[in-house]
Amino acid sequence: MIKRILLLLIFITFIQCKEESPKKSEIINDYTQFVNPMVGTSKMGHTYPGATAPFGMVQLSPQTDVQELLKDGKYNPKTYEYCAGYQYRDTTIVGFTHTNLSGTGHSDLGDVLVMPTEGELRLQPLNTENEKGFVSTFSHDDEKAAPGYYEVQLKDYNIKVELTATERVGFHQYTFPKSENAHILLDMVYNIYNHDKKNVWTFIRVENDSLVTGYRQTKGWARDKKVFFAIQFSKPFKSYGHKKYDKVLYNGFYGRFKEDENFPEMAGNNIRAYFNFDTEQDEKIQMKVALSSVSTNGALKNLQAEIPHWDFDKVKKETQQKWNKELSKIEITTLKEEDKRTFYTALYHTMLSPILYEDVDGNYRGLDQNIHQSEGFTNYTVFSLWDTYRALHPLFNVIHQERNNDMIKSILAHQEQSVHKMLPIWSHYANENWCMIGYHATSVIADAIVKNVGDFDKKRALEASVSTANVSYFDGLGDYIKYQYVPEDKSHSSVSKTLELAYDDWCIAQIAKEVGDDKTVSEFSKRATYYNNVFDAESKFMRPKLADGTFKKEFDPLDTHGQGFIEGNAWNYGLYVPQDIPKMVDLMGGKQRIGQFLDSLFTMELDDKYIANTEDITRDGIIGNYVQGNEPGHHIPYLYNWTDTPYKTQSRVRMIMDTMYGSNVDGLCGNDDAGQMSAWYIFSSLGFYPVTPGSDKYAIGSPLIKEAKIHLENGNSLVIIAENQSKENVFIEKITIDGKEINRLYLTHNELMNGGEFIFTMSNKPNKNLGI
Amino acid sequence: MIKRILLLLIFITFIQCKEESPKKSEIINDYTQFVNPMVGTSKMGHTYPGATAPFGMVQLSPQTDVQELLKDGKYNPKTYEYCAGYQYRDTTIVGFTHTNLSGTGHSDLGDVLVMPTEGELRLQPLNTENEKGFVSTFSHDDEKAAPGYYEVQLKDYNIKVELTATERVGFHQYTFPKSENAHILLDMVYNIYNHDKKNVWTFIRVENDSLVTGYRQTKGWARDKKVFFAIQFSKPFKSYGHKKYDKVLYNGFYGRFKEDENFPEMAGNNIRAYFNFDTEQDEKIQMKVALSSVSTNGALKNLQAEIPHWDFDKVKKETQQKWNKELSKIEITTLKEEDKRTFYTALYHTMLSPILYEDVDGNYRGLDQNIHQSEGFTNYTVFSLWDTYRALHPLFNVIHQERNNDMIKSILAHQEQSVHKMLPIWSHYANENWCMIGYHATSVIADAIVKNVGDFDKKRALEASVSTANVSYFDGLGDYIKYQYVPEDKSHSSVSKTLELAYDDWCIAQIAKEVGDDKTVSEFSKRATYYNNVFDAESKFMRPKLADGTFKKEFDPLDTHGQGFIEGNAWNYGLYVPQDIPKMVDLMGGKQRIGQFLDSLFTMELDDKYIANTEDITRDGIIGNYVQGNEPGHHIPYLYNWTDTPYKTQSRVRMIMDTMYGSNVDGLCGNDDAGQMSAWYIFSSLGFYPVTPGSDKYAIGSPLIKEAKIHLENGNSLVIIAENQSKENVFIEKITIDGKEINRLYLTHNELMNGGEFIFTMSNKPNKNLGI
Repeated sequence: MIKRILLLLIFITFIQCKEESPKKSEIINDYTQFVNPMVGTSKMGHTYPGATAPFGMVQLSPQTDVQELLKDGKYNPKTYEYCAGYQYRDTTIVGFTHTNLSGTGHSDLGDVLVMPTEGELRLQPLNTENEKGFVSTFSHDDEKAAPGYYEVQLKDYNIKVELTATERVGFHQYTFPKSENAHILLDMVYNIYNHDKKNVWTFIRVENDSLVTGYRQTKGWARDKKVFFAIQFSKPFKSYGHKKYDKVLYNGFYGRFKEDENFPEMAGNNIRAYFNFDTEQDEKIQMKVALSSVSTNGALKNLQAEIPHWDFDKVKKETQQKWNKELSKIEITTLKEEDKRTFYTALYHTMLSPILYEDVDGNYRGLDQNIHQSEGFTNYTVFSLWDTYRALHPLFNVIHQERNNDMIKSILAHQEQSVHKMLPIWSHYANENWCMIGYHATSVIADAIVKNVGDFDKKRALEASVSTANVSYFDGLGDYIKYQYVPEDKSHSSVSKTLELAYDDWCIAQIAKEVGDDKTVSEFSKRATYYNNVFDAESKFMRPKLADGTFKKEFDPLDTHGQGFIEGNAWNYGLYVPQDIPKMVDLMGGKQRIGQFLDSLFTMELDDKYIANTEDITRDGIIGNYVQGNEPGHHIPYLYNWTDTPYKTQSRVRMIMDTMYGSNVDGLCGNDDAGQMSAWYIFSSLGFYPVTPGSDKYAIGSPLIKEAKIHLENGNSLVIIAENQSKENVFIEKITIDGKEINRLYLTHNELMNGGEFIFTMSNKPNKNLGI
Repeated sequence: MIKRILLLLIFITFIQCKEESPKKSEIINDYTQFVNPMVGTSKMGHTYPGATAPFGMVQLSPQTDVQELLKDGKYNPKTYEYCAGYQYRDTTIVGFTHTNLSGTGHSDLGDVLVMPTEGELRLQPLNTENEKGFVSTFSHDDEKAAPGYYEVQLKDYNIKVELTATERVGFHQYTFPKSENAHILLDMVYNIYNHDKKNVWTFIRVENDSLVTGYRQTKGWARDKKVFFAIQFSKPFKSYGHKKYDKVLYNGFYGRFKEDENFPEMAGNNIRAYFNFDTEQDEKIQMKVALSSVSTNGALKNLQAEIPHWDFDKVKKETQQKWNKELSKIEITTLKEEDKRTFYTALYHTMLSPILYEDVDGNYRGLDQNIHQSEGFTNYTVFSLWDTYRALHPLFNVIHQERNNDMIKSILAHQEQSVHKMLPIWSHYANENWCMIGYHATSVIADAIVKNVGDFDKKRALEASVSTANVSYFDGLGDYIKYQYVPEDKSHSSVSKTLELAYDDWCIAQIAKEVGDDKTVSEFSKRATYYNNVFDAESKFMRPKLADGTFKKEFDPLDTHGQGFIEGNAWNYGLYVPQDIPKMVDLMGGKQRIGQFLDSLFTMELDDKYIANTEDITRDGIIGNYVQGNEPGHHIPYLYNWTDTPYKTQSRVRMIMDTMYGSNVDGLCGNDDAGQMSAWYIFSSLGFYPVTPGSDKYAIGSPLIKEAKIHLENGNSLVIIAENQSKENVFIEKITIDGKEINRLYLTHNELMNGGEFIFTMSNKPNKNLGI
């Protein structure tokens, strides 16, 4: 199915190239040139620079150094920096893994680490006082990263590494020096986070002198994760072996076989294997590494189906074309070349997850650990929903409707397989990792339904949502239903939970409306108002309430700890009522007060003590007391639209885009959060933002682009033009749609889908009447 | 497929009952009454008393773990006694497991331990100084064991336990006292052998208030074993929970869920779950526990297909009928009732393995850990081939030809899935445990081919055998091929290996003959003579030889340690040339000398030092220096047939049957070895024995039965009559087949298959001319 779609897309690209720009050379259409996968690899972006296909199951990326991180027996808090296995400041590479998360706030994966080396065989990764490890130094000067391609020189071994990938297969190309001691290591011990303690079981089979299969099972963030693989070498290895680091209870092998060398079955908790080669000067050894969630046979099928040849450049080019096809869905011009780089890199980052999670034959491992067949859809995993429901899935509803439909079907399959009968909270490689709060899959569903995206079964989707919303033992939900808010003395982060649940319940009501289930509309519309119950009219803040109905006494609305919020404080998170912003504004004192409140939020000075020790929040991502580096505030700059100074949204979002995003390694001011940070940038650059996913409206901000053309899957093209665009002209003077002026501060999804021409006339002075 | 066969068998039984004995009451045909599953549960028989169907995948049996055995952190050498989880001398039961090995010499399994308790919830199995564990005392007076049924009273809880089983489902029936504190424990920690260190991962899902699924993965004798299960309770539990004994690295659950109680997903290395009930006085709670090697969905399918109701007595009766059908394949009369008990118990013990190893839909886990579909056969596992090729599989070629055909197809599938491309050595739950020496699957194949059993692909079977015989890294095989014997300084147990490999190679030659592959016949017929190369003409013993061609200097032919043999000494194991006994006799000094040698073997006094510390050999199983309690000697009593005193075979086998087998708990003189010990008894009781599997001949011994009728699958009935049978009349005066006298000491397989009447005329004096 996916192959057919891809073929179709390639075909459409071809047609478009032919028809739309017959004279443009290929390079002009190459949007991949504007993508810098290194963006976010410094500081806390948590992105990886490696090779991957759009939404691909394989993320083949270097793992830097982490001398500290790999030291045995110690938990290392630095792990947080290595969610994606790479930190730009590092000077060594320990190998290349085939699974990596992009932009998450917690670590996992790092499966199937491969490392080419030369010289004496070393199986310990780290340099110690007395001995060198297999780790190698590298220089960023020798490094290239592009969509679907990564290149580096391993200085210790004089080996050039080139990596590319299809959806399910990583393709390595190593250029060796002349050697009788060339090795390719397969390290089954390496894990991102809790390094050597996470393996449940690992298994390697040497099928013949150039084919290896196996699997790894880990207990990490995903409690019961299984990754199967098949590795094909372009050249037979001359010998191989492994070292086991386990205490073996019983072993029928020992004394009867020389198991360590050239014995084709290896298994244990912690093993490292090696494959030995003779190489000529500049000899290339290639390796194709296919993954599967199902079985080694599944991995073999993927290997054979996706790369049945040894033409590295062909795969590299095809994957680049896939990227270009996806990136060229939005063609922009900008004031500065750098903005184009930032934009296309952000757009790239929005397509690194959710990831494809099925074999070429449609088999995949379900949440129940049984093998399922995806009938009528393509299965995806890695749904970091507390992050991505906000802008990433809404972005998909504009440019990847077919994929988002598949993602929703994946979400529904997850619910069916769930013993809790719950939609995913954070769907993680056939596991639920329960990360963060609320059940935002309902928002993803509602947004698609309201926007008429997809052909998934709406009735099933409603049932799944209602089922989810009634699991009483889920994270404060029973008390939320009972008390009509989450009492802080029953469940921590009670205000955040109450606000998010109320919004999610509103989403369920929207789904029910589409299905025509009035009873459910009524029930969940009522639950959607529960945010009222944590509003403290006295302090005018959302505030933690106890089970006895009184507000918690000690209350610091600036603190993110113990104040009823998670990853945010009352100033920020307290503004979270996207389902009914006008009522929230009334509740909190009216338009003028909220306008002033927002002014204060963006300009106040926040004491360092409120930033220290707060996960996911660093000084980099903060403006006053506003936090762009984390999600709960992403809608806040747009809230001016509901005040009497709506133009302040326009200047504020332009300021955020200018200061919080960039095209260099430190171009992200916080975790990219599985693409949410980048999706915010894409929408904001285009001039609008889905403040309330599940409604068909987009709040208007201020476009950063000069011109954008969005190629929609319905065949229409949406053109956005920012007239008089300049660095200073951040304000909108006038808006026309197909030449017709509108005087409102939102666009509708239908207006987008109809295509046509949106012209924003920009100015350096606000039009204070616009939208009033 | 298996279901169809069973239905057919039941139908045939019905027809036969109708036709042959229309007036016999059911009880007369009930051969299960003669079976005592307790036989071998004392001392070293290593059998289990629990409920199982013939060759069933579920072996549901009590675990009488002694306190010592479960103590944490200690390896306990007593484990050896608990290969089947039960020792008759014990007074406590710790629970009932669903997988158990019968009669093996090494321990594993003990999966899915269930224990009903009453009163305070206790999750620790053992009583300690301060606290009671969940273990209960029991008395053999309250215990019943029959084919397919086991019953016991748990005295500490006043709970009656009844167990039965279909092929894939264990059926429990617990009669509780009145209680508000009744529990059923599901202990995922319990393992036979290396108790709390063997789990790789365990997982439990509470699907609803009466259905639980899950799996366990262990690293034991089978290095990578996975057992999936589905448990259906007849009554909803009122609450449930679990305790985890692991150090948890990351847990998204804690602080957000009360995971320990009523949370439907449990996972970890070591967890114990419990389910709580209210019960009335004498209330029965039933439980159906289905297994699968594939998945929890597979287990659910098995559950629904095999027991779609709650009628315990129906299942008990049907399984009893299945047993009776199998047991009644050989109908005997004996001098003593006890002999009948011994015989049918032995026959029962020959049908406890290999076990069925596929789901009702034909899916099974293969050696490569991928899921396969058994096309055209039923898949089996637990092939303890070094034991069972001798007499168990030959017995199957008489009474279970269709099953043996399936078993050979299973063996061939194993070879196909093997990364070594080897036939199984010891096929163990989708694993190869490499136990013992040689590659005796070739014997199983040759024996079937020569006896025209089965429709498996002979050419494939030959290829698989030849492939196996050329894996140079296998346990001395490379050196065996190079030196034409296994040098003791290259590989231990070198003489045993040389002798067994030479025999196995002869078997390959027999397969090649049937296939018509002359080149292979010639090659392997040559290898079949390599036994010559370890014969020391000076000492007249098979003797360990070094790589330099000289015999190892220090040599004690009575010792089983370091003398080139395994589980045997030169006196016994040195007689192992079944493929060419006449040549062996010549080599060793001729008929007379061998006759004297055998006399000495059976009558000499063996010093205790030779018995101590020898696994699988105890004083119980020894006659002089002859060991019945272990396999390498099983053909030896029949070797007199090749001497000038053949009648001594007759008295000796009768003596062995009389003294080494019985119908009480200590009725086995050593491990039953997956049915081999019992198969020896069945053949010997009938008057003949397959000294050379892979030939079509059976050496004649001395029948123990008075009369036997064997119902063959070809429709024929073979009648064996021992005229003038008595305790003293152990010698054969005369043999007739269908009235025609024969003067030879063997029967052919065709003679057996043709049916007809074999009359042995017995006497208290030997007919010294018989067969001469």
